[in-house]
Amino acid sequence: MKRIEILDTTLRDGAQSEGISYSVADKIKIAKILDNFGVDIIEAGFPASNPKDEELFEKLKNEKFSRARLAAFTSTLHPDEEPESSAAMKKLLAADTPAVVVFGKASSVQVREVLRIDCEENLRIIKKTVSYLKNAGKEIIFDAEHFYSGVTADRDYAYRVLDAAAEAGADALCLCDTTGAMLPSDAERLTREAVGRYRDKRIAVHFHDDTGCATANALLAAEAGAAQIQGTFLGVGERCGNADLSVIMPSLKFKLGYEFDCDMKYLRKTANAISEISNTRIRNNKPYIGKSAFYHKAGMHIDAVKKYPPSFEHIDPALVGNERKFGLSEMSGRNTLLDRVRQLLPDADKNSEELTRAVAVLKEKELFGYHYEAAEASFTLLLRKALYKYEPHFNILLHKTTDDFPSANGELTSCSVVQIEVGGKTEMGSSLGNGPVNALDNALRRALSVFYPEVKDMELLDFKVRVIDANTTTAAKVRVLIESTDGAGVWTTVGVSCDIIEACLQALQDSYEYKLLNLSKNT
Amino acid sequence: MKRIEILDTTLRDGAQSEGISYSVADKIKIAKILDNFGVDIIEAGFPASNPKDEELFEKLKNEKFSRARLAAFTSTLHPDEEPESSAAMKKLLAADTPAVVVFGKASSVQVREVLRIDCEENLRIIKKTVSYLKNAGKEIIFDAEHFYSGVTADRDYAYRVLDAAAEAGADALCLCDTTGAMLPSDAERLTREAVGRYRDKRIAVHFHDDTGCATANALLAAEAGAAQIQGTFLGVGERCGNADLSVIMPSLKFKLGYEFDCDMKYLRKTANAISEISNTRIRNNKPYIGKSAFYHKAGMHIDAVKKYPPSFEHIDPALVGNERKFGLSEMSGRNTLLDRVRQLLPDADKNSEELTRAVAVLKEKELFGYHYEAAEASFTLLLRKALYKYEPHFNILLHKTTDDFPSANGELTSCSVVQIEVGGKTEMGSSLGNGPVNALDNALRRALSVFYPEVKDMELLDFKVRVIDANTTTAAKVRVLIESTDGAGVWTTVGVSCDIIEACLQALQDSYEYKLLNLSKNT
Repeated sequence: MKRIEILDTTLRDGAQSEGISYSVADKIKIAKILDNFGVDIIEAGFPASNPKDEELFEKLKNEKFSRARLAAFTSTLHPDEEPESSAAMKKLLAADTPAVVVFGKASSVQVREVLRIDCEENLRIIKKTVSYLKNAGKEIIFDAEHFYSGVTADRDYAYRVLDAAAEAGADALCLCDTTGAMLPSDAERLTREAVGRYRDKRIAVHFHDDTGCATANALLAAEAGAAQIQGTFLGVGERCGNADLSVIMPSLKFKLGYEFDCDMKYLRKTANAISEISNTRIRNNKPYIGKSAFYHKAGMHIDAVKKYPPSFEHIDPALVGNERKFGLSEMSGRNTLLDRVRQLLPDADKNSEELTRAVAVLKEKELFGYHYEAAEASFTLLLRKALYKYEPHFNILLHKTTDDFPSANGELTSCSVVQIEVGGKTEMGSSLGNGPVNALDNALRRALSVFYPEVKDMELLDFKVRVIDANTTTAAKVRVLIESTDGAGVWTTVGVSCDIIEACLQALQDSYEYKLLNLSKNT
Repeated sequence: MKRIEILDTTLRDGAQSEGISYSVADKIKIAKILDNFGVDIIEAGFPASNPKDEELFEKLKNEKFSRARLAAFTSTLHPDEEPESSAAMKKLLAADTPAVVVFGKASSVQVREVLRIDCEENLRIIKKTVSYLKNAGKEIIFDAEHFYSGVTADRDYAYRVLDAAAEAGADALCLCDTTGAMLPSDAERLTREAVGRYRDKRIAVHFHDDTGCATANALLAAEAGAAQIQGTFLGVGERCGNADLSVIMPSLKFKLGYEFDCDMKYLRKTANAISEISNTRIRNNKPYIGKSAFYHKAGMHIDAVKKYPPSFEHIDPALVGNERKFGLSEMSGRNTLLDRVRQLLPDADKNSEELTRAVAVLKEKELFGYHYEAAEASFTLLLRKALYKYEPHFNILLHKTTDDFPSANGELTSCSVVQIEVGGKTEMGSSLGNGPVNALDNALRRALSVFYPEVKDMELLDFKVRVIDANTTTAAKVRVLIESTDGAGVWTTVGVSCDIIEACLQALQDSYEYKLLNLSKNT
């Protein structure tokens, strides 16, 4: 069985992306997702450079990982530093990870121009750092920064650097294309050569995408015998990003025959979850997982795919959790939807009027910008409405929400009044709030709790806002997702509108309705 | 001098992208831009499949191209069709282009499964089509659809297809990776083999990006002796897109030594112009031309680039019309900020009180949730405030913004009133809006334009909302980014608050202030 190790550095190198800023809580969530999916090593941070990462490693000690081992990142010691008294080493060891990634420069010109120390001195600090950490019982991955450009300009020195790390006890030697300059033919040749030289060490590779070749270089390196691929799950990273594991892993598995413990059917879901937390967008045309990756527009192509899918699909989209889409006569989804319809109407079949109605309603909503993949509770309500199996528990008759500057009471800027109706009786609720959405939420909850005291047990867990078709700017449509809990269950609802308060209100309304629906089913 | 031919198919294969829809006028504009930049062949459309493309070719007859030659695309004849009476051939010849691209299947399984004709019959129609068009005086590029998968599964037949086209007079034989399945090692090997077999023909390559390897495959094919690269300028195209010429061309020139007539300094400008017309966005991390392609965030990297640019830049950004950028986040150091402080206070040094103040203000703001790396304009204002080099152009005295359900006028749900003060004079503006943010934006603009009519030329381009620390839910802090333009420049501003309307107002206020600041500097 062919195996290859995956090191994910989304949390360390990926955090250097323009526009990405992870909180400690974000990082823990992403680490758990990566572990669930099944990467081997999670490079979680650089404790000596960043107090946030110190806190992160402290908190990670309370988390259980089923499969992945954690790694902390560090530079080498300074020339005049002793490891025992180094603050950086103290912070690194306090992180208490089984693995550490130590980086050192493998290019003589970079040592002279950037470190501005003697090349021999550089070898000495690499050895000193690696052997100190080896004696501390760590698994050591040595990242040879600038290896590819270094070995091209000064072959002898680049290999002396790898030799130094190897002799000092590094377990894996990582060849880095730090500037992302490598074209594939050189990447292949130089990796193969290094693999041949260090038969008793794992060779890892770390590519950046500055020439758009990181994916190809990683695959070529695997074929040349590399034992570990480093990258970030969505290809995030400084400049043009790191090698993209979400694209490399399926090719390794389905095209080159490598085995992973993870199930690639969860690839797209995993990518979507990480992308949500990172507040980045997965581009539609991203290989394997993009929305358009299996989308067919030309009539001739749709015809061909129906006759013989491999005519325009290099792989079955279901293998990576994606799906085929057709431009016009959209047929996808009907079968999936039928299963759901049958839960409410066991006799429904493919030709049922109810199914047709559900398909039409769903299409219309999705066209408007609703997105039910992440809002199962709203989908449940929508389906019941389409099948006339739904009686709302309350109606909102009016709301009036204001936002004032300067604020009336000196602190809270917003005020909301809501009137609802339940079985012919009306009730009003009002509240100030920390922003209009908060005021509206509080006011609605007060009115509702007169009829349904159970809503007081509900708590909102998470709140996300995404602007869709941003080019209409401040009048743009927004999609709001709200995650709620009552202690027993957790559910997510969605709202879409050009008016952000209206979008929030839809998601809130669905959230309360879903809670009340379950309550009535249980009594 | 090493040369390689570039065929751009943005207008034909690129038009199959999800979300792209070119008018005839768009296509003419793009063709002119491509010609100006310096591609060799523009594959402009498929006249027989599309009446819009017939019109396009008719109009293109009135356009002068300085360098590029036009090509029209066509399928082969149907088995029972004679060229002289074929409507498709008539339309093709009416397009009157010097070059034509004829596609035919080079995979025996695809011929059987999709065309559902005999493999010998397929050879016969390829020959008949190519020789007819050759006799009509055309330069013929034969696109061997499914060549790579075809030659892998049935080597003999794939080459019989190429032989048939070659013997019938095709000038160039194009090897197509129609499903984008090829990994680089196979792409290289199979291209090299085909180049070796047809010494007297130009071998072209046409890759799709379904495994993320199209760029690498094209570069490897060039090294293997291919004479023509086909692709689309921004990598648009069905599913995951075509090989991306904007990424391939600079690597061919700067890394592999090919000469082009075009000046790569216009690469980014050309890409931006095509992207505008296509209504697509160039992703920030796109190699060579993306906004972040030469962006440095980590303090250690910024230091290194200042000492020695090749430490984290694989090429001088100016060569492709791009520029270096430094980040302003928590990771970057005092040094970066010093450069910025010196632009306003040339005498400042590392120990200046002003620098210390600027560092403190920035830290405090970032801790609160502001994020300046994506909001350069707000950063400029913040720095001026910290250095006491800033006089606001207006003050907001009050605003009152309401959101009502049901809406008062039956359509617009929001209303806003704003009062501002400029040099002791006050002015009010009011507006209804599509949501409260839109109402507030309109009201503020009305009041401002009394004093500063120039703000009427401003337009908001993009609007992003991100919830930070979402676990406080509807009272959570949000960060808003607004991108604005006045036709000449584009700038981004940021606002953070628990109240989304307040956060938008901050970003709007900064946007207007930034515009007014530049106005006062220019007068």
